[in-house]
Amino acid sequence: MLKSPNQKMLNSRKAELEARLENFRALDFQLNMARGQPSPEQLDLARSILALPNQDQYHSKDGIDCRNYGGIDGLPEMKQLFGGILDCPQKNIIISNNSSLSMMHDAVMRAYIWGVSENERPWREQGTIRFLCPSPGYDRHFSISELFGFEMLPVEMGEMGPNMDQVEALTRDSSVKGIWCVPRYSNPTGVTYGDSTIKRLAKMEAASDFRVFWDNAYAEHHLVDHPMHLTNILEACASNNNPDRVLMFASTSKISFAGSGIAAMGGSLNNITKARSYISARTIGPDKINQLRHLHFFKDLDGLRSHMKAHARLLKPKFDLVDEILHCELDGKQIASWSKPKGGYFINLDVPDGCAREIIDLAAELGLILTPAGSSFPHSLDPKDRNIRISPTFPELDQIRQAIEILAVCVELVAIRNQLNHRLDK
Amino acid sequence: MLKSPNQKMLNSRKAELEARLENFRALDFQLNMARGQPSPEQLDLARSILALPNQDQYHSKDGIDCRNYGGIDGLPEMKQLFGGILDCPQKNIIISNNSSLSMMHDAVMRAYIWGVSENERPWREQGTIRFLCPSPGYDRHFSISELFGFEMLPVEMGEMGPNMDQVEALTRDSSVKGIWCVPRYSNPTGVTYGDSTIKRLAKMEAASDFRVFWDNAYAEHHLVDHPMHLTNILEACASNNNPDRVLMFASTSKISFAGSGIAAMGGSLNNITKARSYISARTIGPDKINQLRHLHFFKDLDGLRSHMKAHARLLKPKFDLVDEILHCELDGKQIASWSKPKGGYFINLDVPDGCAREIIDLAAELGLILTPAGSSFPHSLDPKDRNIRISPTFPELDQIRQAIEILAVCVELVAIRNQLNHRLDK
Repeated sequence: MLKSPNQKMLNSRKAELEARLENFRALDFQLNMARGQPSPEQLDLARSILALPNQDQYHSKDGIDCRNYGGIDGLPEMKQLFGGILDCPQKNIIISNNSSLSMMHDAVMRAYIWGVSENERPWREQGTIRFLCPSPGYDRHFSISELFGFEMLPVEMGEMGPNMDQVEALTRDSSVKGIWCVPRYSNPTGVTYGDSTIKRLAKMEAASDFRVFWDNAYAEHHLVDHPMHLTNILEACASNNNPDRVLMFASTSKISFAGSGIAAMGGSLNNITKARSYISARTIGPDKINQLRHLHFFKDLDGLRSHMKAHARLLKPKFDLVDEILHCELDGKQIASWSKPKGGYFINLDVPDGCAREIIDLAAELGLILTPAGSSFPHSLDPKDRNIRISPTFPELDQIRQAIEILAVCVELVAIRNQLNHRLDK
Repeated sequence: MLKSPNQKMLNSRKAELEARLENFRALDFQLNMARGQPSPEQLDLARSILALPNQDQYHSKDGIDCRNYGGIDGLPEMKQLFGGILDCPQKNIIISNNSSLSMMHDAVMRAYIWGVSENERPWREQGTIRFLCPSPGYDRHFSISELFGFEMLPVEMGEMGPNMDQVEALTRDSSVKGIWCVPRYSNPTGVTYGDSTIKRLAKMEAASDFRVFWDNAYAEHHLVDHPMHLTNILEACASNNNPDRVLMFASTSKISFAGSGIAAMGGSLNNITKARSYISARTIGPDKINQLRHLHFFKDLDGLRSHMKAHARLLKPKFDLVDEILHCELDGKQIASWSKPKGGYFINLDVPDGCAREIIDLAAELGLILTPAGSSFPHSLDPKDRNIRISPTFPELDQIRQAIEILAVCVELVAIRNQLNHRLDK
């Protein structure tokens, strides 16, 4: 069989990469980069929380003994802090325990069992329920939709958020009851929703019990000094006569401690009042001492924001390093593109169609565990099999350097193998 | 109108009591005894938790960094502690955040939406669902039943727990899906379930998706040195071929801090595995730092039990004082009977039929807020209007002395007024 010069070059490059691969194999490298976890150094920034509020400081500003029962929706000063994060008045906030994901799950659960309001039928009585899933997106959002048996409709993610032409076309169907949004530094694309995206979400035609699940998980998680402005969706909904359309969520999971932080929900007074009445039957109240602990540590929104600058100082070199190595290894090869996010926890890497799963499997053979292929898509099915989520926050710089080199070699090698196979197929 | 000598005596006693009432009114007494809350002195016993785990101690026994994500069902050492409280193996335990009530709510929610197992239809698809409500009982249990639209069937409470003849007769109907039980020092009667009650609960005929909601809220909350043995219901269910029948709950809300404690659920491996799979979609995990805090403070079950003895030393004088004043004021008058519990948080006072609401209203006029009339019954309807729940844990001894004197005078006065009215009616 004759080989074209191009094919020769590909084969020779393949051999080079395979040699590098064998070198990597000899390293016995082990790193799990599957999830977006803060690093120990980031957690150390909040270390003093571990000894707070301290033995004599258990009263709230209003003199409440936080060790006892009560306070169904949180301390006023904690509502104020989250009002700042979610850009809404304190009275529009409910504080919970450590998990905003639980608050989202429970908001879906309440709409499913009891309906979003007295005037709306429960979702469980309305036949097939559909949810819009901008993809790639956050796997745990999709899992909640799946759990409740909702049909998931993927929507493309663009530079300014979900493709709003698609969204507007789909929400004309009244069986579409929700959309999952991470408006700032979207997981995994890093996109921040543009003003026009947000206004169209607020204005578009949709079922009266349609809800935007606005998971502002990275509201304060900037890598740049002057973050892009995020249009206030609660106000946009109100001024477009859809005041109850959005439910907003945030937490300090990636601000203080992952799993031991404070979570909050924001929304219209209708939504908040309704939610509070159901929450009152479920619990006597969230952990007020943990609220106090966080308040003593952060003081206020300014304190929290200066804390986040310390996070950024630890994170930016990691994001920069990933970018640098990807450039160095893959520039000009037309086989990969990746995001350069201004905040959040992820870098989104797109590889040639049909290659992502093979790359992820190959990396795993070399000890590098990445987020499982397809995770960022409904039912874990990446239709083009091209998306890889990189989570650079947890590992140390040396580990990242090694990991991304391994990843880049896997990307190029799988791409070349696929190219060569394609030619053989012809 | 002629008055019988007896009526004369009643009128004269009524005048005496009314004079005392006026004296009370002049005191401007103010006390809220509506809820069973621990006192500040009880909370002080665990004060050092407020500075734990401390800045350098954030690892679990297995070396897990508890500040980060993970651990869906709790640290092994915390499961072990609750295994001791709930009398079951560690592997049968799920740890949650601060609220066992939330765990009960969510267990009901899961059965309602998804069914108790793969082989059972969801409760929402089975028409009218009925729950057995031993009464008087805990109002928040009944609220959960109400929230889900279940029909509540009251069952009498006796000295050994619910009237099991009634329970067995009712559970033959397969629409009966649950029973609310506080097996030790029941709220409010103080009753501990007898061995035969528990064995009959485990053995009786009932729907395959019937569940005993075993809220062991006062598992460790003894006022006596040698508490009565509680038969192991999980084992009783297993040996009667109903291994999945019981879901057990407990928390440290009244051990460490109310609202900032740790809650847990126990049950068969089937139930626990099923619950864990749903919980995994709802949260990344409960607050592990708070688990650590509690573990550092209590060390182990012995530590927790010796801590509860300190609680008992604070609580027993309060329970004794209530009993003493009730005896002193009401003995021999045949208008009241009350419990003398060996643990828990309440004293149950029964007054003449038709008098409880009037007594509670009269006490409120004098500044003494008691648990609202009827609260311990489904839909807050006490069919005989005779039950009053006394919560002696929070107030100081002087306040209790005054409060119970006021209550006793209200009881006698309302009883006499009713007696006189009855005679007029004749």
